[in-house]
Amino acid sequence: MTTDSTLAATADAKLALSGDNKLTKEQQLALINVNLAEVLNPEIIEKVIDEGRAPRIYWGTATTGRPHCGYLVPAIKIAQLLAAGCHVIVLLADIHAVLDNLKSTVELVGYRAKYYERTITALLKAVGVPTDKLEFVLGSSYQKSPEYIMDVYKLATLVSEHDAKKAGAEVVKQSDNAPLSGLLYPILQVLDEEYLKVDAQFGGVDQRKLFAAAKDWLPRLGYKERAHIMNPMVPGLQGSKMSSSDPDSKIDLLDAPDVVTKKIRKAEAAPKVTEGNGLISFIEYVLLPAAQLLGKEGFRADRSRDNLEPLVYTDIAKIKADYESDLTPQLVKPAISAAINELLAPIQTAFQASPEWQEIATKAYPPEVKVKKEKKVKNKGTRYPGGAARDQDAKDEATPEPATENAMTA
Amino acid sequence: MTTDSTLAATADAKLALSGDNKLTKEQQLALINVNLAEVLNPEIIEKVIDEGRAPRIYWGTATTGRPHCGYLVPAIKIAQLLAAGCHVIVLLADIHAVLDNLKSTVELVGYRAKYYERTITALLKAVGVPTDKLEFVLGSSYQKSPEYIMDVYKLATLVSEHDAKKAGAEVVKQSDNAPLSGLLYPILQVLDEEYLKVDAQFGGVDQRKLFAAAKDWLPRLGYKERAHIMNPMVPGLQGSKMSSSDPDSKIDLLDAPDVVTKKIRKAEAAPKVTEGNGLISFIEYVLLPAAQLLGKEGFRADRSRDNLEPLVYTDIAKIKADYESDLTPQLVKPAISAAINELLAPIQTAFQASPEWQEIATKAYPPEVKVKKEKKVKNKGTRYPGGAARDQDAKDEATPEPATENAMTA
Repeated sequence: MTTDSTLAATADAKLALSGDNKLTKEQQLALINVNLAEVLNPEIIEKVIDEGRAPRIYWGTATTGRPHCGYLVPAIKIAQLLAAGCHVIVLLADIHAVLDNLKSTVELVGYRAKYYERTITALLKAVGVPTDKLEFVLGSSYQKSPEYIMDVYKLATLVSEHDAKKAGAEVVKQSDNAPLSGLLYPILQVLDEEYLKVDAQFGGVDQRKLFAAAKDWLPRLGYKERAHIMNPMVPGLQGSKMSSSDPDSKIDLLDAPDVVTKKIRKAEAAPKVTEGNGLISFIEYVLLPAAQLLGKEGFRADRSRDNLEPLVYTDIAKIKADYESDLTPQLVKPAISAAINELLAPIQTAFQASPEWQEIATKAYPPEVKVKKEKKVKNKGTRYPGGAARDQDAKDEATPEPATENAMTA
Repeated sequence: MTTDSTLAATADAKLALSGDNKLTKEQQLALINVNLAEVLNPEIIEKVIDEGRAPRIYWGTATTGRPHCGYLVPAIKIAQLLAAGCHVIVLLADIHAVLDNLKSTVELVGYRAKYYERTITALLKAVGVPTDKLEFVLGSSYQKSPEYIMDVYKLATLVSEHDAKKAGAEVVKQSDNAPLSGLLYPILQVLDEEYLKVDAQFGGVDQRKLFAAAKDWLPRLGYKERAHIMNPMVPGLQGSKMSSSDPDSKIDLLDAPDVVTKKIRKAEAAPKVTEGNGLISFIEYVLLPAAQLLGKEGFRADRSRDNLEPLVYTDIAKIKADYESDLTPQLVKPAISAAINELLAPIQTAFQASPEWQEIATKAYPPEVKVKKEKKVKNKGTRYPGGAARDQDAKDEATPEPATENAMTA
């Protein structure tokens, strides 16, 4: 999880992507673990690799607002997992999306799920990883089945109110007036591990209590315990205040290059401060690993306006050190815009080439609905990266709607 | 709900049972309301009658321990509802029974549900009411359906933790360590009204908060509000201390006459005290209405041993007045045993005549399971009449298993 391991891991990724798929166990584990904040029960994943199987790892996301650049953080980890030879299951939590906004129709949420699937696939292709081991599963495909619901009932009798509340403490609003569903969602998320037949669940470190509960609860039903891998909480790309006050400022994956440039120009970025700096974090967790997955030289800051050679970084420690001395926001911002636009270009090309995808987008986010919806989205935990950045302000004024969830807000 | 209305209502019942089914609306309502503690939204039932329909009324019971004499209290009310021309749905809450004891198999609970159906039907036939409008529905036949579970999820997002807890306050153990299912059960019980398409739900007055919640919650999902009719809480037939310390002392519906006599002889009964006296309550809520439904002269106390004419009561007020002066427990107990044995005789005859029912009984309550199970059953609200009598002691030491429920403990 150090910069050294990042470099080693991404070198392995290049090896994997070059078609020579014979990664060693250590190389696979390095790619799985790079940039993670924490892993619970790593031995479970190691055992699967030892058995010669592809570890099945699931990540869940509620199909609510339009995916934006914040989704790139979990997507890069998913890309690393795919590059490591894992089988990745993206749970499109459409039932959660319906419950998140009971005014939205099942049909609308269905289009959003399709939109998420298209977008996430394009995004992973854009960083050059194979998507043959990428699988999308709709929550509604099994979360209403008799077997699942019987297990929901059973687990609810085996888990105390107190423990359910504790499990959701980081991702569900804690108050007596909170909806009951907030206590029910941890039950569902834990059962998902069994019903998706995974070896591990991936999420943000805000899911930690829930993941610990999963370890504890599944064996009560006679199901096996899974591993859990966690991304750190990453500050919002454009600065927390900006994104919570104006959600439309988020960078949509289909935003035109000039719009991206404008939004990044307006992003918060304290000079010389790397701690909690969304731009620096975005380089660390998205742009640098993406460049490395794509076999590029690194993160590049153009200085031609000053008649200087470009700066090329392969190491986040070096970027941070420079930023704390003389690398200015004015230099970093255009470099980030350029890198984002380069990353988004193939996604946008694919979108433009697909009338079907365009139709899905129109039906999933009809203009009037979009505005209403986006206004309601606040911080709801990382399974709703569509929400505001995860800062204390956002946490304190979190919407009363419950959330369980797991991904990265950036 | 006075003695006068009891008499009028049972006269109507006799009229109804005589084959002349043309009860007036007032006669129907008198039979529906007799002996109730409370009715919420009686106008809903009145409107159904005005429309010329048979009011659909549901009563739920978890199919756990063997039905005993305590079941006669709700059964008599069901008999009165049938006599009033209502369509009565008995929800056999088999899922709740499985959740109540996760060690029991689905197969075992299935036999118990069959046993309950046989027994309750025989019991209603024993008081001479028509059973063509009596319907049994297994909870599992719809409580695992996709439509129902989606409504469970939705209602859980529309109801606060606080309100769910409040709704179950009388029937679910209130503690932080209580299982989460205790908060989920009110959601289910409220939805049952919609899924059973009833006009009203019947239960003990311990269900009042839950019934009030149902009025409030169903419209949130766009479903209509139902009426609620409530029996009073009736003290245990054999006295609360006896039945909670020794559950085997409960009178089983298949107990031989001498066993019944012995158990009643040992029952608690303070002389001259009618308040909280289980024997007197049993006369009021079971034996007197049963006699009246059967067109008998009333409740009869034999005094041949003293060479005196029998006492025949048609009025509970007169029994209570006499008991408070010179009607002794020694005289009342044999009269009660005789009346119970008379009531149980046709049930036992039907059981003896049916090898199928006998086989169901053996499979539903295999000797070794019975002992274990019965020991665990304590007060769980009136949907578990198998539990101990509802006294404050029992309430305080209630089992941690959750309950929602509705019937009568006697």
